[in-house]
Amino acid sequence: MIRVGIFGATGYTGYELIKIFHQHPQVELVFATSEHSAGQNIGDLYPCPYNVPLIANEAAPLSEIEVAFFCLPHGESVSWVRRAYEAGVRCIDLSADFRLRDVHTYETWYNTTHHAPELLAYAVYGLTEVYREQIARARLVACPGCYPTCALLALYPLVKHHHLASSRIIVDAKSGVSGAGRAPKMGSLFVEVNEDFKPYSVGRAHRHLAEIEQEVKTWGGAELSVIFAPHLLPVNRGILSTIYVTLNAGWSVQRLAEFYADLYAGEPFVHVLPPGKLASLAYVVHTNRFVVSFAQAGENEFILVSALDNLLKGASGQMVQNMNLMFGLDEAMGLENQVVG
Amino acid sequence: MIRVGIFGATGYTGYELIKIFHQHPQVELVFATSEHSAGQNIGDLYPCPYNVPLIANEAAPLSEIEVAFFCLPHGESVSWVRRAYEAGVRCIDLSADFRLRDVHTYETWYNTTHHAPELLAYAVYGLTEVYREQIARARLVACPGCYPTCALLALYPLVKHHHLASSRIIVDAKSGVSGAGRAPKMGSLFVEVNEDFKPYSVGRAHRHLAEIEQEVKTWGGAELSVIFAPHLLPVNRGILSTIYVTLNAGWSVQRLAEFYADLYAGEPFVHVLPPGKLASLAYVVHTNRFVVSFAQAGENEFILVSALDNLLKGASGQMVQNMNLMFGLDEAMGLENQVVG
Amino acid sequence: MIRVGIFGATGYTGYELIKIFHQHPQVELVFATSEHSAGQNIGDLYPCPYNVPLIANEAAPLSEIEVAFFCLPHGESVSWVRRAYEAGVRCIDLSADFRLRDVHTYETWYNTTHHAPELLAYAVYGLTEVYREQIARARLVACPGCYPTCALLALYPLVKHHHLASSRIIVDAKSGVSGAGRAPKMGSLFVEVNEDFKPYSVGRAHRHLAEIEQEVKTWGGAELSVIFAPHLLPVNRGILSTIYVTLNAGWSVQRLAEFYADLYAGEPFVHVLPPGKLASLAYVVHTNRFVVSFAQAGENEFILVSALDNLLKGASGQMVQNMNLMFGLDEAMGLENQVVG
Amino acid sequence: MIRVGIFGATGYTGYELIKIFHQHPQVELVFATSEHSAGQNIGDLYPCPYNVPLIANEAAPLSEIEVAFFCLPHGESVSWVRRAYEAGVRCIDLSADFRLRDVHTYETWYNTTHHAPELLAYAVYGLTEVYREQIARARLVACPGCYPTCALLALYPLVKHHHLASSRIIVDAKSGVSGAGRAPKMGSLFVEVNEDFKPYSVGRAHRHLAEIEQEVKTWGGAELSVIFAPHLLPVNRGILSTIYVTLNAGWSVQRLAEFYADLYAGEPFVHVLPPGKLASLAYVVHTNRFVVSFAQAGENEFILVSALDNLLKGASGQMVQNMNLMFGLDEAMGLENQVVG
Repeated sequence: MIRVGIFGATGYTGYELIKIFHQHPQVELVFATSEHSAGQNIGDLYPCPYNVPLIANEAAPLSEIEVAFFCLPHGESVSWVRRAYEAGVRCIDLSADFRLRDVHTYETWYNTTHHAPELLAYAVYGLTEVYREQIARARLVACPGCYPTCALLALYPLVKHHHLASSRIIVDAKSGVSGAGRAPKMGSLFVEVNEDFKPYSVGRAHRHLAEIEQEVKTWGGAELSVIFAPHLLPVNRGILSTIYVTLNAGWSVQRLAEFYADLYAGEPFVHVLPPGKLASLAYVVHTNRFVVSFAQAGENEFILVSALDNLLKGASGQMVQNMNLMFGLDEAMGLENQVVG
Repeated sequence: MIRVGIFGATGYTGYELIKIFHQHPQVELVFATSEHSAGQNIGDLYPCPYNVPLIANEAAPLSEIEVAFFCLPHGESVSWVRRAYEAGVRCIDLSADFRLRDVHTYETWYNTTHHAPELLAYAVYGLTEVYREQIARARLVACPGCYPTCALLALYPLVKHHHLASSRIIVDAKSGVSGAGRAPKMGSLFVEVNEDFKPYSVGRAHRHLAEIEQEVKTWGGAELSVIFAPHLLPVNRGILSTIYVTLNAGWSVQRLAEFYADLYAGEPFVHVLPPGKLASLAYVVHTNRFVVSFAQAGENEFILVSALDNLLKGASGQMVQNMNLMFGLDEAMGLENQVVG
Repeated sequence: MIRVGIFGATGYTGYELIKIFHQHPQVELVFATSEHSAGQNIGDLYPCPYNVPLIANEAAPLSEIEVAFFCLPHGESVSWVRRAYEAGVRCIDLSADFRLRDVHTYETWYNTTHHAPELLAYAVYGLTEVYREQIARARLVACPGCYPTCALLALYPLVKHHHLASSRIIVDAKSGVSGAGRAPKMGSLFVEVNEDFKPYSVGRAHRHLAEIEQEVKTWGGAELSVIFAPHLLPVNRGILSTIYVTLNAGWSVQRLAEFYADLYAGEPFVHVLPPGKLASLAYVVHTNRFVVSFAQAGENEFILVSALDNLLKGASGQMVQNMNLMFGLDEAMGLENQVVG
Repeated sequence: MIRVGIFGATGYTGYELIKIFHQHPQVELVFATSEHSAGQNIGDLYPCPYNVPLIANEAAPLSEIEVAFFCLPHGESVSWVRRAYEAGVRCIDLSADFRLRDVHTYETWYNTTHHAPELLAYAVYGLTEVYREQIARARLVACPGCYPTCALLALYPLVKHHHLASSRIIVDAKSGVSGAGRAPKMGSLFVEVNEDFKPYSVGRAHRHLAEIEQEVKTWGGAELSVIFAPHLLPVNRGILSTIYVTLNAGWSVQRLAEFYADLYAGEPFVHVLPPGKLASLAYVVHTNRFVVSFAQAGENEFILVSALDNLLKGASGQMVQNMNLMFGLDEAMGLENQVVG
């Protein structure tokens, strides 16, 4: 049994971890923290039968665990990660604090000072399918944002193998509301979201763009740039990205589907659709799957459509997938019912 | 032109008044207040093209209006109503402060002290179809709550004419989320409400029960009592009440439909359904209509199903209907497209 | 491995079985039938990665399975059940064909002739928590309807132990839209259901009432009667029942919670809420759980609020729970992540 | 009073016309047709109090009306339009039959033969803000599709004035479900749409692309081409288009907002948002408004975000706006409460 702790267990991603651990045969949840709800139980905060007492971050018994999961806001995460890291605990962080390899990029996009820049060199970007080997041995995994996971797994094959003919990539992304977290905000109220659909932070304004461009440039060259337009969907879960790219001559939807199927062969959580089918949220919600599909829009113009569940493959599911990898387990353990058959 | 002001214009009911006044041919909106957003414009707070500057309550020019609309929380409303009342302005209040004729009942249910009990004697309960004559001459109208309007207009004919055989009335009510207001609360977040359905304050716990019983007892006798079970529906607008009553011998659905059609004949906003049809939210949302229908459940057991839009007939629409009545206008003015044809 | 077949695999309940079997460690799915989609694959009909070819009912190799699951419409189910039964296959039927022990009651409510009345004597009503011993040895299990499961598990403790003071029970029930099945009907269109809420078949009109009364009368006496008012909720999954009962003197919410907790102690899928909490869909959707809670509405007047997922505990989940029971497996196998912790 | 008739009154757009005419002070609805529901009343088909008998198309008294509204499917519309046209009735058609000026383009995209090509020369494309003068005198107005109206009003100022630096325009569009009509189809079922989000007919596959390109090429030159990616949103009403364009040097969001505000000055139904605000469905649903907004995504890369209600400005509202124009009325009559203030 792997002994684990959760920092920040009461948000949607922390609660998702609790649910996964409840069915994971090799995990023992040693503690779960909450600054605001310490002393309460997860069953007081969510409609569930789980009995998980909540303690303050400060009270977390780091010496009793092997791996810690961090579902804290950026800026808050860094100090607890450092403490755990220094205690010899392996760290799987979902905040943005260790995703950007360049500290100045982080400080610019997040408008703050980084308080553990010395750890950045040890952090591995936790996009499982791309960085599997590094993640397996990592002591600190910085799990990607939900939007980046959805865009990057769609772009990776084409970018990595230099099949783009234009340096301009357009990602028109649509996310369910759980991506905004559980904090009470007027913009997340039911009446404000239901029956509406709205763009926000479009162009070059959303922080997840920094991650997306970091990876795309790493894989394909510094000249690549991304236009990113996120929108808020009136659904609980799921992200769908419609991605517009210009490819080198000779591609077709058929060839794309084959190329992706080959490249992602054996991946338990990647579902490549055949020509004629397009991804939708229904393919992925409540699973750890990522789905990708293709359409042609002009001679060399193509549309990639990808989707995932923002709380699973886009967050807590990928965290657990990484933990499984780090501890030598079947990557799908605890996520089995969500494996691509 | 009737010169009007709105106190508390930035909640859902205040904004609904602004939209209605925008199309009302006999209303001039002189001012709109907001304690939290004074200095801003309604167009900054809602996705709309309306240009309505917001001022503080204190800055409201009471001498320039004939009638004031109060969409303030209970407890806050009372002092502004008194100030307006004393300035000779007719008052249409949507708070609970003047709905309960007995000050002790108010203070018990609302767990507070009433700061203008002397005005209670002048307040008319603004259930238009029942108290039309009193409303027409009133200087202070206390508009009913949304749940009470929906239950009371359904019960009035049977209770007033003493057709109930049992003193126990069960009102199983379901409301859209706008009834909870626009304040950020975790319980009103999209993810918490969407795909869920939940009861709250069931039994004898919801404050609207005090109003419902006040009226039912006034009409039918002190022995009547109500069991009230409100539920939160994942929709923006609308209340549907499923009401269980035992009637004296001899009733049928056919006879009920005829009795209600006669009793509400000529009412511009009451829609009595024929046998075989049942009320639903779609009959009423975005209109000022109230709809009522009937089913038989046993020899003398009947079910009344009624519905209205909680922001219109259950709140702002009924306020405007009352204003029209108070100023001698066609009761449907400004609400025309919502009239029963 | 238990070798199973599904008759009628392409509706929502059949597809739910396929998803459960995909994660069930002791099930081998031998075949899945569909009259309309024979020759296709489940992956052509649903957004999923599952590879399950569909064959015609007639082509089902009954000799290769130990147990058959029937998700066919009432009237259609009976002949396939008989064929399987006679071939020595154990049968778990979700249609209404074998739920009503009295053939005349069936023929009256379903307005048809029963074509295998001789099998009725062998059918066990598959309400697991109530008929566990009979189900374990049954060759034919008639799984209850979704509404009946939700109402009956809530009523069983009080009715069985004769704690009702009045013979009139009111069940105000609200169901998600998947209960209406996947057939294209105008009334199930998104635009017709979304933002609406409507009652249907209220009073004594819905066929599930026959089941509810059959069980209630069996447990508590023939004088008991039920008023049943179903409503259509704009959600995908879930049923919530608000049940109004009059009890003998001496009950409280506290005592009810204790009584139910004792009576259902050890049940893996029954979640009894403590005083102060009320059931909601969020407690149960995407799980096989049933949740029940209590409120007081008068001296001896009480409200029971219960909920379940209509496709799981209300249909396919209970079918699998029964299969586990019939084959001596852990009752929660394949449904583990949905067990009450 | 203008005497009008509706062909095809029972779909969502026909019913929307009935609701608008109910409040339009200068319209007398003489007849409404339905092939499938002749003999019934609109009140039998929709939850409303309107009393509008339905007759067969064949029975329509063309001699008693001045203008006919056609809400029939493409292919069906043409013969009834011709009959009305030849009877001297002015025609406002919502089908695709007269939108494409080139008969071969029509026949290719719609895979059918055009049965009244001689009328194409008389048809005016009913995009009110662009073709106002021609519409005013037209005897046959071909109202645009919902997607085209939303895209074209956003693109018109830039295309008409040749401010595009690239010939490639990307329109990522998202529509509510009422756009799919009221016919029972599995893909429009609540459970299939709710909590999902899916692209369809992306690339160069959707028929509305033909209209969009016809107009764009007419305004800006034949070299322009459009990539069009429609998606299905889980909402009842509304279309939002996110449009990616490359402009000539020198543009900013500020300059765009001013340019559009000037160009659309005085338009009662066009709402140009200032810098910093982005369009969303909430700006337009249940109104006849079109809203447009702007963001920068690169040096000369810009994003236009536009929205409208697909049943109003995208269909029936624009039909009535055109009728008002054709009969010399205030363009906003009957649509007043939906005017930009």
